[in-house]
Formats: sequence, C-alpha cells, structure tokens
Amino acid sequence: MHGESSRSLAGTIQLAKSMNRRDLIKLGTGALAAGVTLGTPAAEAARPSGPVEQWNVFEASFPGPSDGNPFLDIAFGATFTHQHRRVDVNGFYDGDGTYRVRFAPDTVGDWSFETTSNVAPLAGHRGSFSCTAPEAGNRGPVTTAHQFHFQYADGTPYFPFGTTCYAYCFVPNPWYALTVKNLKAAGFNKVRACLLPKPLGDLQPIGMPFERNSAAGGDGSGEFDLTRPNPAYFQEVERRIQELMAAGIQADVILFHPYDKWGFKSMGPEADDRYLRYAVARLSAYRNVWWSIANEYDLIKSKSTTDWDRFFRIVQANDPYAHLRSIHQSRVEYDNSKPWCTHASLQQYDFERTAERMAAWNKPIIYDEIQYEGNIARRWGNLSPEEMTHRFWRAVINGAYATHGETYITTDGSPVWSDAGELHGTSPARIAFLRKLLESTGTTGLMAAPAPYYPNAGNAGELVLYSFDYHCVGEYEFPLPTNVSFKATLIDPWAMTKQTIPGVFRGKSKMKLPGKPYLAVLFEKV
Amino acid sequence: MHGESSRSLAGTIQLAKSMNRRDLIKLGTGALAAGVTLGTPAAEAARPSGPVEQWNVFEASFPGPSDGNPFLDIAFGATFTHQHRRVDVNGFYDGDGTYRVRFAPDTVGDWSFETTSNVAPLAGHRGSFSCTAPEAGNRGPVTTAHQFHFQYADGTPYFPFGTTCYAYCFVPNPWYALTVKNLKAAGFNKVRACLLPKPLGDLQPIGMPFERNSAAGGDGSGEFDLTRPNPAYFQEVERRIQELMAAGIQADVILFHPYDKWGFKSMGPEADDRYLRYAVARLSAYRNVWWSIANEYDLIKSKSTTDWDRFFRIVQANDPYAHLRSIHQSRVEYDNSKPWCTHASLQQYDFERTAERMAAWNKPIIYDEIQYEGNIARRWGNLSPEEMTHRFWRAVINGAYATHGETYITTDGSPVWSDAGELHGTSPARIAFLRKLLESTGTTGLMAAPAPYYPNAGNAGELVLYSFDYHCVGEYEFPLPTNVSFKATLIDPWAMTKQTIPGVFRGKSKMKLPGKPYLAVLFEKV
Repeated sequence: MHGESSRSLAGTIQLAKSMNRRDLIKLGTGALAAGVTLGTPAAEAARPSGPVEQWNVFEASFPGPSDGNPFLDIAFGATFTHQHRRVDVNGFYDGDGTYRVRFAPDTVGDWSFETTSNVAPLAGHRGSFSCTAPEAGNRGPVTTAHQFHFQYADGTPYFPFGTTCYAYCFVPNPWYALTVKNLKAAGFNKVRACLLPKPLGDLQPIGMPFERNSAAGGDGSGEFDLTRPNPAYFQEVERRIQELMAAGIQADVILFHPYDKWGFKSMGPEADDRYLRYAVARLSAYRNVWWSIANEYDLIKSKSTTDWDRFFRIVQANDPYAHLRSIHQSRVEYDNSKPWCTHASLQQYDFERTAERMAAWNKPIIYDEIQYEGNIARRWGNLSPEEMTHRFWRAVINGAYATHGETYITTDGSPVWSDAGELHGTSPARIAFLRKLLESTGTTGLMAAPAPYYPNAGNAGELVLYSFDYHCVGEYEFPLPTNVSFKATLIDPWAMTKQTIPGVFRGKSKMKLPGKPYLAVLFEKV
Repeated sequence: MHGESSRSLAGTIQLAKSMNRRDLIKLGTGALAAGVTLGTPAAEAARPSGPVEQWNVFEASFPGPSDGNPFLDIAFGATFTHQHRRVDVNGFYDGDGTYRVRFAPDTVGDWSFETTSNVAPLAGHRGSFSCTAPEAGNRGPVTTAHQFHFQYADGTPYFPFGTTCYAYCFVPNPWYALTVKNLKAAGFNKVRACLLPKPLGDLQPIGMPFERNSAAGGDGSGEFDLTRPNPAYFQEVERRIQELMAAGIQADVILFHPYDKWGFKSMGPEADDRYLRYAVARLSAYRNVWWSIANEYDLIKSKSTTDWDRFFRIVQANDPYAHLRSIHQSRVEYDNSKPWCTHASLQQYDFERTAERMAAWNKPIIYDEIQYEGNIARRWGNLSPEEMTHRFWRAVINGAYATHGETYITTDGSPVWSDAGELHGTSPARIAFLRKLLESTGTTGLMAAPAPYYPNAGNAGELVLYSFDYHCVGEYEFPLPTNVSFKATLIDPWAMTKQTIPGVFRGKSKMKLPGKPYLAVLFEKV
C-alpha cells in the first residue's frame, strides 16, 4: 500500500520541472550506476531514463527542504516495481537540499518507481528504466550457498580471501590511492573496512561522519551533532566502495568499532539506530557491500547484546538486498546461530574447531582475524608470511575461510596495511595462489573430511585436497574413494608450485612425497 | 631386625671358603663396580674387599642352590651398614647356582654387609669395603629438586634432554653398537628404553627375558615359564645400562609397554610383581636408572589403575635408592599427584598447560613423547627438525623438559632411531645447544613467568630467557626487573648462534630484533 499512498500524495503537487539525466561516477571497467535527477514531482506518466545493468546502481535525486533538520524531519523513499513485484527502498538526504534514492535491480526487464515522502515536494515522483544483462565482471552480490559457502548472485562460487584495511574508507591521500593500487595488485577479493573513522596517529581522517557542533563542550563532549550526518564524508566513502566494486572486491563494511576517540562508539541507541538506517540507505545498493555489525563488538562496553541484536535487525529490515550480515568479536563469541546473522566472522585461529562450530551454527565461517603478518611488538601483529599462509590453508582445509592482515613497522609515519597504504608482505601472493587453486577446481566449496588421519577436504567425492600441515610425510597411502579415478597434483603452498604426480589413482593409493612441511596434494576426478 | 636375624642364621652355617675378589665389567671412563665373589658363609670377621667409589656398584656373589626353582624358592639379600645406618638390599639369582647382591653406597667411608637368606648356604656372609669419593663424571643418581626440577646427588643441576630408543636394551648388533655411538655423539643425557622386548620387524631381540617353556601350547600360550627369568637377557641389559652410565646418560627404564607379541604385557599380577622385584633387585644399584613404570600404560587393557598403583609401590619399596619413578600415557593421564610418582612423564605437547599441571601436581614435568622428527606416514612420526627443536624450546620456556624421538623411513631393514640404530635428524644438535645454554647459565631450573606477554622463564629474577616462538618481533620493550642489571644475548635456536646485544639493561628496555620466528633473548645478571 506504500506505493498507492505515495501516488495519491503525488496528485497534490506541482508539475514536474524538466528532468536532467546524468551519469553518476564511472569507475573502472564499466558504468556502475545510472540515474536521474528530478526537479519536482512528475504527476503524469513516469519519465524513462537510461538502461541500468543488472546489480548496478540506479539513482534518482530530488530537491527538497533544507531548513530545519532534514535528517530528522523528512521521510523519503521510493517503491520500485517490476511486473507484480514491488520493492520499497529508503532514500536519504545528501545535503544542500538534495534527496536521493538508490536501487540495484536484481532482475532484467522494465522497472518503474515512485517516490514517497512525508513532504509534498518529495512524494509521487515517478520514473522508469530498463534493466539490462550484466556485463563481464558483474556477478551480482554475494550470498551464502550450500550451507557453509558463498556464491555470487549469478551462481558463480565465491571464496572469500580477504584482507583488512580498517581505514580504507577515510584514510587521506596518498594512502588511499596506494591502498587501491596495492589491493588490486594483491588479488584479495574482500576487504574489511570501518565506516566510522579510527585514529590514525599523525594522519587525519578525510572528514568526520557527523557535522561538528558549534556548541561543543571544552572536554570534546557534544563535539558532534549526531542528528546531522556529514554528506561529504559518506559521499567519499561511497566513491571508495564503488572503487572496490569496480575492482571486484567485496567491501565488508564495519558499522561499529571500539577504536574511537570521538565518541562514535557510544552515541546512544537513538543516534546508533539513525546512523545505521542512514548508512544502509546510502550504501546498500552497492552490490559488493557486506555488513559487519562491529569489529571486536565485545570491546564496546557501552552496548549490550540487546543492542547488537537490534542493530542486526535494523540492518536486515532496511536493506532490500539482504546483504551478508555478521559480527566480529574480540573474546566473547556472539551467538552466531541467531537468524539475522548470515555467517560467522571470528577472531580466532583454532581452525580445528570448525566442524564443531558448523554443527552449532549451520552457517559459513570466516576466520576474519587470524593475526597479522608483520613485525610489530604486539603479539597479534608479527606472524611470519609462512605462518599467515599456513593459517589460510588450515582455514580452507577445515571448510572455512580466512582474512589476511598485515602490520609491518613503518618509520616514516605511513600507516600499516591493516589500516591502509602499502602492502609489504609476502603472504598475499600465496593467498591469491590458494584462491586461484580453489577456483580452478570447479568446487562450490570444500567440506572438511570428518576426523581425517591427515587434514583433507573435498567436494562430493570428486575432489580431495590434502594438506599435510607440519607433517613431513615421506610416503603415504591415500584412502581415496574407490568409485572415482583421480589425477593428482603435488602443491607447494609457499613456493606456489603445482606438479603433476604421474598416474591415475583410485582407492588406496600409496605414493612417495617430498617429506617437507606444509605440502598439499590435490586429487581431481579424471 | 632383618640384620639381626640374618646374623643368627649365619651362626649355623659352614666356614667360608677362600674368597675370590673380582672386578666387574669396566667401561668408559672408570671402574663402575667393585665386588666380591664369596664361596660359603663367612661366620667369622668380615673379609674386606677393594674400595668402591661413591655411587658406583659394589657386588657380591655366592654359590647357592640351583635345584628346584631358585627364583621362587630362595630369598636372598644383604644388609649394608655404615656407622649406625643400615640399608636392606635385595639380591637375585643369576643362574648357574650363583646369587648376587649389588649395592651403590651413597656415603664415603667404611661399609660392611651381611647376607640374609631362607637357606643356610646364602645367609650370614659378611664383608666390608671402603667407599671413596667419586671421580670426575660421577655425580650420583638424579633426584627431583627445587620442586619442579632435577639435580644429581652431588647437587649439580640436571636438565633432562633425552631421546627415545625403545629397543636399546635388546636390539642385536650392529644396531646396539651404532646406537651407543650415535647416543654419545648426539649429546643427549637421557634415553627412554624398554626392559621387555618389543617386535623389531625382521630383526630378532638378543634374547627373551624369561626361559622358554618346553611344554608351550601350539598357539604360543605358555611359551615362556614366567617363574624363570632368563639371567643372560638381564646380564646383557645391565651391560648396556652400564654403558649409558659410563657415557653420563640416564636410563629411563620402561618396565611395561603394550608393544608385545609374546604375552609379557599380560602376565598376570603374580608374575608382574615377581618380574618387577627381580628387575629392581638387578638394576637399582646403577645410579643412572630411572623407573618408567610403563610406556602408554593405558594401552595395556589387561591392567587397571590398581595394578599401576601397586607397581609403583613395589618399585618404591624394593629400590633402596629411591630412583625417579613415573608413568607415561597414551591418552588417559595417570594421576601424577600420587605420592609414589616423582614426576610427570607425559605424551603431550600442549606445553602452555604446564603451569596448570605444576599447580595440580607440584612435581617436575617431562614431556616424554612430543612426537618424532622423521618422515614416516604415521602422523606422530614426521616432525620437521625445526618443529622438534621448537617443541623443546616451548617445553623449557614453560619450565618443563622434553624428550626427543626420531622416525625416518629406512629402506634396508634398519630399525628407526626410536627403536635403535642410526640417528639421521638435525634436531639433536639444536637440542644439545639448548641443553648447554641452560647449563651455562648457572640456573637450577627455569620457572615460567606467569601469564607473560611473550613466553619467558627465569630464575630468581637474575636470569630471564625470552622465547618469541612464531612471533617475528622487529622491536620490543622488555619489562625487565628494575633492581638488576643484565647483559643480553640474542639466540637463534636453529642456527645455534649466540650474539651479544651491546649494552646493560635494567627495567623497561626497548631494543630492535631481527623480526624472524623462533628467536630467543637471554638476559643474565651482570
């Protein structure tokens, strides 16, 4: 009924001004968004705009009230319609009297929309567009699949091999540009990044997510007007998320975090909820967005489980695309079995407990913080690249996924990679090697063998990947399935070599091995 | 009152024959035993024999009955006396009508003895000898010290850095000779070895510990007469234990084990207890003997906790020297807090639980099976030498000790080192390096720091050894005690290098480090 009421509102308002179509920012390999800017409501027939690629962003903007506090006072949104299907989408105030609504169509064909609002100038605007087939590289948003795994909306399996750049969204240049350059070169397909700023040593974030309050207390309290998001901040964040989208990298957007010196981790429930709705309204149309409700949620002492549960529900209710939702802990595990949580995002590296967790939660597991390659003094920040590589293999062979991080000491004031900037380590190449190996097999996701003698994982009995971990096995009789013939490949995860083992294997298959640690053997159906 | 009764028995028997003094087997650096062979009881004044070094073996032998079953029928022993002190010692039948009693004096000065028996020809023999100060290399037996550590009887700290050669006592030549050669060259100071034979593939043990039974069943049952130990077997075992003694290597003698194809693991309580008394009577005078009640005791399903407890108590009651006693498990931990257990002997490598175990048991802990350097297919038998080295460091930095093992594939029928033979690995040199490092510090045993940021252990605040484990620390501020000045040494456990870090350190001390895994830093009081 939402659409009906908005149409009746629309009947009361003025004639449309001439429409100005514009293309939004174009980045990378193709147009990421098409849209319209509309003046006043179009009471008559909807005006068509240019075609939108499936899972790309359609955006429409309208002028509206700028007095009072538009963020609090004005309700604005649109209903998008395709055949008998209707999707209600929240819009948002983007400052300077401009209201926007974004929509990523998931179905090819004709779509129309009509705006809704509690004020006349923003209600009843109508438009339409045609949704065209996606171009190469656009596979749609990622969802969970096959219980413990992920895939793109087009059905292609997606194996998360991500990294961590907490400050990606707000780090100043040249570090932002460097981060993008390094991310693209490294071959990660996901990045965990905070939406709210965190302190960066001597560097200053590009801006603040809320307007500064002229009546702030001398102690910094009340420094920000939490009823007024800063559109410029979010515009830049969006640009950066689109840059990731163009590069085929998922943005695991961290909505809250404890690394805060401005009070954003303790805004109070009203401001928290408003902030979430605003962020979701702005960002959810970008197909590469995932929602990480928090990083180390349990370190934010001002919020309770009730708050975290509510945040999940708010994000779920306001995101028409049902982007992936998780929450990341320091020590106290969230109950990942809760229905609004799509997968587990763990700060752990006891990968051998994966089966137990899968049995409890029935969801994919990403070990999202497995410590950092680097050499800093903190004990979480000085893994060798070999150990980082090894942990990725342990995650995968247990049927789960992992996320990289890096903290090498910098001496020139540069941030560490776990915030943003330059990647120095040697594990990323090995992580990309593992990702490509997995992608090359045609699996939809590996399932760990139960109680294996040596760790192995496979897919429907037609693929078996052994990882010998620290075991320097000189010869081994693999207990392969007897009903399938396999070819075998010896893999050195560190040297990044693949070597065919001559022969065809079936059932118990004894073979000599190099007796070095961390080797793997891949059996694929002939 | 034992001595009194034996003297009265002595009064009833015949005049002594002329005594033949003989030196027992001499091996290595010095005379290991001195002794007498006596004919019939010396009713008159005891005849003196040559001097015996403190903690070396005095032995006296006497002819006695050889008819019936001397093992069952004849009780024989002696009481050794020094000033007002009396020590009752069991003797044993050594076959061919010969009865022996051995004694290792722990005090310099004059000792006398008188035999006791339930038969006249073996009772009332008297003799005396002078116990002289020990020569270099003879530090006496090892005992526990400082609650969680060990020392020799002369007060020198002893840090067990052992290995495992299960078949040492019964492997045929040339493997026995090779084992000794390799043991001496490797620098281990303890070896775990089974007293009862275990199968050796195509190799045959040098003999069997019991006489074969002419009336054995066709199924092998009753193949051995368990009432008749085979003296030749034990004579050879003793020779081998003395060889270790001469080389300064402790013999952790495993009394029972589950690797058996002859029925010795299930002899029944009577035979078990007789076997234990016989073994203890024969071996306890050798100062390098430790008693390992069993290896993987919980895999011997025919015995219960009641049996294991009784075995401990039998060994304790029959060993006048109170040699160290422990029991080694597969999966089910023995209650190491029991009073007859001198230290814990664990098949585990979760070294980080050491503090918890020490709190529970208040005893030293030796991680006696931490898997094996090697390349065999079994997952316990293919550690890299780096990992084996690393595990020793983890044990030590947690205030405990560890035992090495090795299982490299052999293709010529040779046994693997964990049984006996040739040592192939490269961890032993690193283990010896760690042992020498510990010995060089003057510590009486390291105590792990409670809940350290990075693992470290020390001694009375005057010594701190940091081990950074997998952490590639590029710089660190060591929180040293503020009341002591330290010199610092950077240690590479694998490269076996020690490098002085210039400066004197006290309190919080920041320094650059190479950012490589597995490095250590030793702080010693200036």
